[in-house]
Amino acid sequence: MPVSGDLFIGSQRVKKSETFFVSSPATGEKLQPGFSVAGPEEIERACNLAWTAFHTYRELDPESRARFLETAADQIMALGDELLERAHAETALPIARLTGERARTVGQLRLFATELRNGGWMGIRIDPAMPDRKPLPRPDLRLRKIPLGPVVVFGASNFPLAFSVAGGDTAAALAAGCPVIVKGHSAHPGTSDLVAQAMTEAVKICKLPEGVFSLLNGNSRALGAGLVAHPHVKAVGFTGSRAGGLALVKIANERPEPIPVYAEMSSINPVVLLPGALAARAEEIGKGFVASLTMGVGQFCTNPGLVLALEGPDLEKFIASASAALGQVAPATMLTPGIHSAYEQGVEKLANHSRVKLLARGAEGTGMHCGRGALFSIAAEDVLKHPEVTEEVFGASSLIVRCANEKELLDTLEHLEGQLTATLHLTDADLPLASRLLPTLERKAGRVLANGWPTGVEVTHAMVHGGPFPATSDSRSTSVGTLAIERFLRPVCYQDFPDALLPAPLRQDATKGPHRYDGAYRTE
Amino acid sequence: MPVSGDLFIGSQRVKKSETFFVSSPATGEKLQPGFSVAGPEEIERACNLAWTAFHTYRELDPESRARFLETAADQIMALGDELLERAHAETALPIARLTGERARTVGQLRLFATELRNGGWMGIRIDPAMPDRKPLPRPDLRLRKIPLGPVVVFGASNFPLAFSVAGGDTAAALAAGCPVIVKGHSAHPGTSDLVAQAMTEAVKICKLPEGVFSLLNGNSRALGAGLVAHPHVKAVGFTGSRAGGLALVKIANERPEPIPVYAEMSSINPVVLLPGALAARAEEIGKGFVASLTMGVGQFCTNPGLVLALEGPDLEKFIASASAALGQVAPATMLTPGIHSAYEQGVEKLANHSRVKLLARGAEGTGMHCGRGALFSIAAEDVLKHPEVTEEVFGASSLIVRCANEKELLDTLEHLEGQLTATLHLTDADLPLASRLLPTLERKAGRVLANGWPTGVEVTHAMVHGGPFPATSDSRSTSVGTLAIERFLRPVCYQDFPDALLPAPLRQDATKGPHRYDGAYRTE
Repeated sequence: MPVSGDLFIGSQRVKKSETFFVSSPATGEKLQPGFSVAGPEEIERACNLAWTAFHTYRELDPESRARFLETAADQIMALGDELLERAHAETALPIARLTGERARTVGQLRLFATELRNGGWMGIRIDPAMPDRKPLPRPDLRLRKIPLGPVVVFGASNFPLAFSVAGGDTAAALAAGCPVIVKGHSAHPGTSDLVAQAMTEAVKICKLPEGVFSLLNGNSRALGAGLVAHPHVKAVGFTGSRAGGLALVKIANERPEPIPVYAEMSSINPVVLLPGALAARAEEIGKGFVASLTMGVGQFCTNPGLVLALEGPDLEKFIASASAALGQVAPATMLTPGIHSAYEQGVEKLANHSRVKLLARGAEGTGMHCGRGALFSIAAEDVLKHPEVTEEVFGASSLIVRCANEKELLDTLEHLEGQLTATLHLTDADLPLASRLLPTLERKAGRVLANGWPTGVEVTHAMVHGGPFPATSDSRSTSVGTLAIERFLRPVCYQDFPDALLPAPLRQDATKGPHRYDGAYRTE
Repeated sequence: MPVSGDLFIGSQRVKKSETFFVSSPATGEKLQPGFSVAGPEEIERACNLAWTAFHTYRELDPESRARFLETAADQIMALGDELLERAHAETALPIARLTGERARTVGQLRLFATELRNGGWMGIRIDPAMPDRKPLPRPDLRLRKIPLGPVVVFGASNFPLAFSVAGGDTAAALAAGCPVIVKGHSAHPGTSDLVAQAMTEAVKICKLPEGVFSLLNGNSRALGAGLVAHPHVKAVGFTGSRAGGLALVKIANERPEPIPVYAEMSSINPVVLLPGALAARAEEIGKGFVASLTMGVGQFCTNPGLVLALEGPDLEKFIASASAALGQVAPATMLTPGIHSAYEQGVEKLANHSRVKLLARGAEGTGMHCGRGALFSIAAEDVLKHPEVTEEVFGASSLIVRCANEKELLDTLEHLEGQLTATLHLTDADLPLASRLLPTLERKAGRVLANGWPTGVEVTHAMVHGGPFPATSDSRSTSVGTLAIERFLRPVCYQDFPDALLPAPLRQDATKGPHRYDGAYRTE
């Protein structure tokens, strides 16, 4: 199936005279074809189609929605190697990594299909009538969650499959019953194009209303802004930069009807190395750290950009091990020239900072736009005075914070902004100190890890990929895992409804799945 | 226990030289004592105390938090008649109504105590490790919800007990593990003062950190603005005007760290009278409508301010019945002179509107600030041209919309903003039409009722008191019922934690209550 360059507006393919091209970040080669640029007319049509589709799609039975998600997964797999090759050409990510990411993407779709069949996602609560209650009878009250409406999903540059056209937010929104309009990332439009072909095919196979899925491409901010401002759009999912996310939040807040924006933005993912762990295995931790830091050329939201430890010979052992390991890592091409140049600037800013010391760089590379790893250190007292050193540098750069004592360690953690993750390396001997740090870490982060690395986010029921501002714009949610379905739902209560008028899942004889009855929890 | 006029900052009583007084709305009599006005220093102290208290209170076992809520309920009841009398003097609400509202208030506190013991509120999810999974082992992942942090609750004028100092948001926040700072409503400071005495006594009896509860009074906007802007405040609950709610949302969004604001603002609660119901019982519905409209001088958020029906003789029967019933209702004193004058202006604006017809007024009254009922009608086509007629008039004013046909009925509903409630009156013969209207109603409202009246909100598990903007600023939540606890929580995932480091509720041998294990729902 060739890359079309079209806009996907429901079942229609639209070609525009204005197009844009992308180049391979690894070779500079201009990739064919040109991609149509969506304008106000296409925004209007896609949003209107989504709005029309919403009315039937939102009441489609969960089994049919589940089959749609599975069909989408099958269609994505059916794209075969062409998808991986195109994604590789556009992002320079290795085929092996993209193969894994594709598995994760279809796995997400299938997990949400399972979740739909589990039934609990509707959050049903039934309080039966009490006609004889004094002084007043109690009415029959039934609660379920309904979808918010059409959702705009912004594709992310760093996961061209798993956080893009058919990624986590798309899977969660479609599972919830919300049509999706994807604003494709301008760095991988061909990858988006192929996945959109799979999605529209799945819509057709499942005989769904066409507006359930659209993909609009473009290379200006007007497209995203226009989508977020459209009155038929009721929620937004975004993964990207802090500036980009905040701009969308502002547009959403200034609408006549404000809408929720789930923007995942900025995180440096602090890692705390406790004394016992450093004493026991400083070298091993150093190697594991560099593996996590340089994975995917450091282009993960959960990349460990800050390491905190108490000063001493064991920390020096860790630094020596990490520095040596980093020196062995050949640099690779970053996702885009823009990301590479922002990385270089971030590294340079740290390198030139009066209080920051450069410890090590990755091996030199010969390819284009290579992100060469960088490891720095700073004294904790200087972090408190120079908060700019903790700004995210997207890529394989990390800053080691030398703490003179436990108080400095705690103060530095307390001083950090909200994070996606926080990590502790510890032994049993470190448990008392870890317990003292944990309250701060869990207040700061959406996920706290012990003796692991934050890169690599499991797609399961208990995962939280979120966290306090500015890690995300809404800490009450997650963008990965089945809990993500809740971000696109809201509760509605039905009072004293005749059974025939109730939505099907709330009727007397409906199979309700896990729900609450008069407050009691029931599994079916 | 006399009304003190103090500010309640943790366990301390603070007197300020600047004070304000309130007058009885029914008599104009100036009530004693004067109330201290909180300034920036008191904001700072209350927020700092709340922040300090948060660290221990949030990890307090649910049973102790439940006992605290029950103790608070007991202490409020122990205030005895003095509380009812003071509330009556400040609000002009009848003693019988206030007695019922007090029962609801302590009932809410006790219901949240039960909810804490139920355990499901923590949303625990456990995905056990899969050490042998290929290609990579799966870590152990455990999710729980933790409280957001100190919450500012704004007392509402129209429920001096149930939506005020120890009202719904306070109960939900305290249950969630969030300390509460109440910004007392300036119209009933004495009522707030007495309830604050009960709350601080409960804090003392339960030996909790003092910052768990504070009450600040004042009569300027600076107090509320200062509280919402304070960095230690992490969420806000508000019930009041649209302008007031939007102002707080703006402050919260412009903070360096934006925070959620749950503002319940504006709703006219459409009631649709379907043809079968009108044919069967137009007169009875007319009487029931007026009873709901004039309850509490129409000062309910769920007051039925808009009635829609198809034109015809049955609608005229309803109008005649409602007009006659309204003429019998003696007006009563409204909550404040300001609310009364806004009501009068709203009624006058409708009465003078070229497309609006005055149908009936309530009986004339002789008391002060009496809210005399008002019933208007308009043609549906004019509603679409003059949207200003659907702006909320807080009080016993309602507008009947005459629809020429089903299309006009649907168009008018579609044209409405978000609502707390929507109501259908119907018979079996109306079910097909009701089913066609329902999708619009549930998209517009947080609660949909059949053959009832929206005033009177049950405090149960399945209640939703919320709805799309501008009914509230966040449709994903409810301010009444046990689901309200979720508005003050966020999820955190713990990855591969040694058992000893896990928070107690997530440990291997903990009693977890209702939770999910590897995706499966378990009740214990």
